[in-house]
Amino acid sequence: MSFERAGNAHSSSDQTTVRRANLGVVLQQIAGGEPRSRARVASDTGLTRGTVSSLVGELIELDLLRETGEDQRSGRAGRPGLALELSDRVVAVGLEVNVDYLAVCVEDLAGNVRYQKHVHTDNRRSAPGPVLNRLARLARGAEELIAAESLVSAGIAVALPGLVAAESGTLLRAPNLGWSDIAVADEISSRLGGVPVRVDNEANLAALAEHWQGVARGLDNFICVFAEVGVGAGIFIGGDLFRGSHGFGAELGHITVAPGGLPCQCGAVGCLETIVGQEAIARRAGICEDDKRRARNVTRELVRRAEQGDAAVIASLAEASRALGIGLASAVNLFDVDAVVLGGCLGPLAPWLVADVREALGVRVLSAGWSGCEVLVSEFGEGAAVRGAAALTLRSVLAEPWLVAERSVAVREGVS
Amino acid sequence: MSFERAGNAHSSSDQTTVRRANLGVVLQQIAGGEPRSRARVASDTGLTRGTVSSLVGELIELDLLRETGEDQRSGRAGRPGLALELSDRVVAVGLEVNVDYLAVCVEDLAGNVRYQKHVHTDNRRSAPGPVLNRLARLARGAEELIAAESLVSAGIAVALPGLVAAESGTLLRAPNLGWSDIAVADEISSRLGGVPVRVDNEANLAALAEHWQGVARGLDNFICVFAEVGVGAGIFIGGDLFRGSHGFGAELGHITVAPGGLPCQCGAVGCLETIVGQEAIARRAGICEDDKRRARNVTRELVRRAEQGDAAVIASLAEASRALGIGLASAVNLFDVDAVVLGGCLGPLAPWLVADVREALGVRVLSAGWSGCEVLVSEFGEGAAVRGAAALTLRSVLAEPWLVAERSVAVREGVS
Repeated sequence: MSFERAGNAHSSSDQTTVRRANLGVVLQQIAGGEPRSRARVASDTGLTRGTVSSLVGELIELDLLRETGEDQRSGRAGRPGLALELSDRVVAVGLEVNVDYLAVCVEDLAGNVRYQKHVHTDNRRSAPGPVLNRLARLARGAEELIAAESLVSAGIAVALPGLVAAESGTLLRAPNLGWSDIAVADEISSRLGGVPVRVDNEANLAALAEHWQGVARGLDNFICVFAEVGVGAGIFIGGDLFRGSHGFGAELGHITVAPGGLPCQCGAVGCLETIVGQEAIARRAGICEDDKRRARNVTRELVRRAEQGDAAVIASLAEASRALGIGLASAVNLFDVDAVVLGGCLGPLAPWLVADVREALGVRVLSAGWSGCEVLVSEFGEGAAVRGAAALTLRSVLAEPWLVAERSVAVREGVS
Repeated sequence: MSFERAGNAHSSSDQTTVRRANLGVVLQQIAGGEPRSRARVASDTGLTRGTVSSLVGELIELDLLRETGEDQRSGRAGRPGLALELSDRVVAVGLEVNVDYLAVCVEDLAGNVRYQKHVHTDNRRSAPGPVLNRLARLARGAEELIAAESLVSAGIAVALPGLVAAESGTLLRAPNLGWSDIAVADEISSRLGGVPVRVDNEANLAALAEHWQGVARGLDNFICVFAEVGVGAGIFIGGDLFRGSHGFGAELGHITVAPGGLPCQCGAVGCLETIVGQEAIARRAGICEDDKRRARNVTRELVRRAEQGDAAVIASLAEASRALGIGLASAVNLFDVDAVVLGGCLGPLAPWLVADVREALGVRVLSAGWSGCEVLVSEFGEGAAVRGAAALTLRSVLAEPWLVAERSVAVREGVS
């Protein structure tokens, strides 16, 4: 195998390291734009044509790239001129346990959602075991699609509504579920025959989805609020998730916005999520439990009533928008980001929230006159976190493409 | 000059780069512990003895290192065994404009304060020009000491109580002074004959001082609150100041802790600094302007009254401690740091604050059970920011020792 950087790669393990890094360089180059020829990849990356051909060969073999028609730039026929693009055969599975729904999606490397399913169900009424059984059944539905379409699964990740210890795969504390210390990664893995499973906080994953395919594409510094029953945030700083010292940062839902306010499920008082979560908004609007159960999707019910001019709902939304403005202004005073993204139930509810949030950022952020922080609205609705769970795997495939071989073998063995 | 890394340094500019990096490596190695011999520096850094000797020679010439007696480890006599330590001849000048005082200090590389002066004066009653005149006079006092003791000044930096654009050296907005858009770096520089001057936010510099020589030494992730009249914070993440997208982050004083509270100088309502700053505490305790003026140092007056059991002061401190607890718990929920440092006037007032802050962190931080965030008390009092201003320069000398030659020349030329 020709290798023109041999001067820096004395041993075979050095050569492997350099080759792996270059696999990532080539794949990310192609992922970052339109289809292009090997020759153009070579000129864009500074690698020789021979090296690019060899790397592209491996990436095609791994189902990460494919050739598509002629390269429109070179205009020449024949193999070296064929344009390369991301393959749609490598996919990742996203799963999500939320307070009032379960979700699954399959997304491919090119950003297409191949499969998705949301099941509304009140998980507060269940012990963790049966909920995780149901989630595993959803995952098996995804696995069946993957097998039927001969796709390659690069991995599975689960979005969780609470504090997560990512390395051990544990949900430490989910106040709104009343769960603590659940080894979710192991539990799901064992239900799926031992495939590797990663877990992360839902709001972190929602932020990842916005950065990967959503309204925050191209933004390096932003705060994404993800509200359902609970309220969390994912914070991007310098192009990456900010996690804090122990991975417990960005808990926006538990900053205090109403010191003398209502008790929160977390044990404190006046947390943001006591006013801004969808159930908090419904409760303050006087929507009773029966109405909520009948409507099933609380957010949709809130939107319906607000559109009809329901005064109680509109007043509750106004209160939520004030609290959200206070909370986000505090966070922007601390993080000095370029944008905030309203996600989860705040997306559909945005028409009743955005103006107040924008005003609060203008009045309450000390640097508002110099920096200016945009207010963006997610287009994913409650689908953001589960798509982010898939993106978690897909991002790591782009960064370390060689791992896909190991992963897909592990997934196949687990399923068989 | 012998140079054993010539294999990686093809051109003379490469050689300069490598040599400069190695100057920093050697200087930081010696700064990080007890005095040691050239031989030990060589074995600790992996550089050859010849290179170390040459680098040490240059560092001695730059007045950054000095030899001191025998190396206790080698026990051998003669020049190569002589122990090396940081010289106390290279110093930096810190200046500070605060709302009710001006300050200057001279600190040497070894961490000794060679000179310091605090002048209590209400800068709200003055236009910027006269205040900066007075600050420049303080700086000249420092320059005279430096000249008299034949020290080498590595630079001057100014701590400012507001939003700072560090690159342009401008104070953009200081709500408590009522100043905006003041080119402080240029103003001070021109008053000192053109020496280069840097500026930074006071709370950032206070955090730097705590990390450099204070209670946060060795901590990579902490929030340092610096309260005087205003309240700011400096936040260390991963061993460095977190500045945000435009350098305006960490504005803890303007997060909302009392939504229906008092108006703040910044134009918002219920900001942390409306309750926690020293004047806010004094005002809520009913201490009138005349009493404050008579006491001159408001913090000392608050301590005196609290120690005597003054019920109004103790009640106001209790209110401040609750607000501070709420604000810090919100910040810790977002940043997930290992410690908070109470600085500025909060240091002397800590006996009336720490218990409430600790309790708030325990109750209001979602991850309190897993992470645990210490509450530390600064020992610098109102001297933290001005010492941090000196540390700003001294840190950069350690990182880039060769710059000290250029800087000290510039300073000498400016003064002469």
